[in-house]
Amino acid sequence: MENRGKCLAERRGEVFFIGEVESIENGVSTIRVFDEFCEGLYRIQTYSHIIVLYWFHRRDSKEQRSVLRVTPKMHPGAPEIGVFTSRSPNRPNPIGLCVTELVSVERCLIQVKGLDAEVGSPIVDIKPYLPRADAVPEARMPDYMRHGQST
Amino acid sequence: MENRGKCLAERRGEVFFIGEVESIENGVSTIRVFDEFCEGLYRIQTYSHIIVLYWFHRRDSKEQRSVLRVTPKMHPGAPEIGVFTSRSPNRPNPIGLCVTELVSVERCLIQVKGLDAEVGSPIVDIKPYLPRADAVPEARMPDYMRHGQST
Repeated sequence: MENRGKCLAERRGEVFFIGEVESIENGVSTIRVFDEFCEGLYRIQTYSHIIVLYWFHRRDSKEQRSVLRVTPKMHPGAPEIGVFTSRSPNRPNPIGLCVTELVSVERCLIQVKGLDAEVGSPIVDIKPYLPRADAVPEARMPDYMRHGQST
Repeated sequence: MENRGKCLAERRGEVFFIGEVESIENGVSTIRVFDEFCEGLYRIQTYSHIIVLYWFHRRDSKEQRSVLRVTPKMHPGAPEIGVFTSRSPNRPNPIGLCVTELVSVERCLIQVKGLDAEVGSPIVDIKPYLPRADAVPEARMPDYMRHGQST
């Protein structure tokens, strides 16, 4: 409680990495969930898709976390936009979010398709994908996001 | 860089709160993005939906962060499951995720519909919703999640 009050007053929180990307092969990423968190995966295979939150560990510097405007290079024609209007890895909190397809689970190892993290990226959280809450196929986005890579 | 190496070795990272939920009225939540991060919202109104990551600030205790199995009370018939198979606020990293409809933006204040955070909840990140990457309407979920609230 002491710590909670302190962090709220100081406007910050602490995250514990719960796993890491161990390998990537043919578009399938293997995530190792650390032993002490492994039980948290119980029954996860009842979902076809999971949301992975990971840490952009190579963007965790003061400079990279100070970036507030970016021009997305991957999307020709994109104007300068705010970081919160982008999925840029340079952002105040270097947290990446990726909706992935769950391929397999074996004890502490889970395999997913479509994760855009690197080998060695720390994992922050795993959540089940709930289409009723998370799927908005008709959501509007700017034209420059309609082509090229999906993020 | 010093700090980055330390946090990686210690398997932890630091998040800075970028705003907070200021009020909720008739299902519309007003988020105040703190002045120093406000520029990051530039052009966000080009999207109809945004993903809000927030901090479960009332679940940020050692005990609540140690929970690895839960039985979702909101979903009758749900078995005991791992925290990563749930959207429970008790989890190793108290980060909530919510896909919301963007209603309005006025300087540092943004209004969204459907945010399940409370008044006072710290905001960790805001990301544009990209239907090509984020919408999987046909994702499979267990039967107990098909009814009642959507998360």
